[in-house]
Amino acid sequence: MEELKRRILSQAVVGEGDIIHVDMFLNHCIDVALMERMGEVLAKRFRGEKITKVLTVESSGIALACFTARALGVPAVYAKRFRTGYIDPDVYSAEAHSFTMDKTYTMRVSKKYLDQDDVVLVVDDILSNGQSALGMLELVSKAGGEVAGVAVAIEKSMREGGRVLRRMGVRVEALATVERVEDGRIILQ
Amino acid sequence: MEELKRRILSQAVVGEGDIIHVDMFLNHCIDVALMERMGEVLAKRFRGEKITKVLTVESSGIALACFTARALGVPAVYAKRFRTGYIDPDVYSAEAHSFTMDKTYTMRVSKKYLDQDDVVLVVDDILSNGQSALGMLELVSKAGGEVAGVAVAIEKSMREGGRVLRRMGVRVEALATVERVEDGRIILQ
Repeated sequence: MEELKRRILSQAVVGEGDIIHVDMFLNHCIDVALMERMGEVLAKRFRGEKITKVLTVESSGIALACFTARALGVPAVYAKRFRTGYIDPDVYSAEAHSFTMDKTYTMRVSKKYLDQDDVVLVVDDILSNGQSALGMLELVSKAGGEVAGVAVAIEKSMREGGRVLRRMGVRVEALATVERVEDGRIILQ
Repeated sequence: MEELKRRILSQAVVGEGDIIHVDMFLNHCIDVALMERMGEVLAKRFRGEKITKVLTVESSGIALACFTARALGVPAVYAKRFRTGYIDPDVYSAEAHSFTMDKTYTMRVSKKYLDQDDVVLVVDDILSNGQSALGMLELVSKAGGEVAGVAVAIEKSMREGGRVLRRMGVRVEALATVERVEDGRIILQ
């Protein structure tokens, strides 16, 4: 998606290692008009897949999941990873490791909101090592549902997430792919 | 908003004490079409206020904040309360106490995304004791910005949040107001 690529090249900031900060439009301050267009493009790519639900995980995937779900005309479910309030005790759960935080966390989704009739589109803001996407696939699998694919705003192809998922036969769609970071510059595919 | 009131009366589940579970359409499984209409109604109520940003806090306010911001044509910013990844070290921060969890937490927002020129609409899913709303007012105040008001899907008027805010002169708009819970039944205003 050209608009997103332009935004990455003009605004994203390279941090330590190959970390890319896109908090100025994607995951702290949200350009909701861009987010809506991204949701529409992702929905279009999966149109015809009979998707019944969009699944994401707290917190940075929620905005894109909502706009994608809106464009598909289905509900958005977010797996909880923080204990902030009530959650149904009857949940599907999966573990994921955050490389950024060097911490393993548990994601939980109430059994009420995922079942065997669901065809699920997994949505997240960034696909890097694929840990949260793999955790969400596990949640869908535990519910007996089907995964239509994984849809993200940005894939970092220098990390293994996208390759692992595609090797498993999962359809992965990214609106922009970062190939590498070179001398502090972002190289898109 | 009649549609939301009907949904609360037909679907919400009363938990312990006066806790009301609305996770089936508001904050775990999200009815994004309803969420979009709620955002439009809230935006309409604040039209003419020259709002420049919508502010919410992780995680349950993000969906409504995004759709309200979309309808207003401004960015949505969410204050971080979890340490899950990068955040600019230069932040405004405020403490809030969660009565549900009996825990105090810190919300942080990068100084880049709130400033003295901002007119901010604070958005959240539920207004109960008002702790997170008060924390967000503090963030805006530290940035030198102006608060246009607090907009929520559901206000629980048996808790003190709404009263405290209105007594401070803050405009509070709720799409549905729960007056009390009586014998396991929800009584709306």
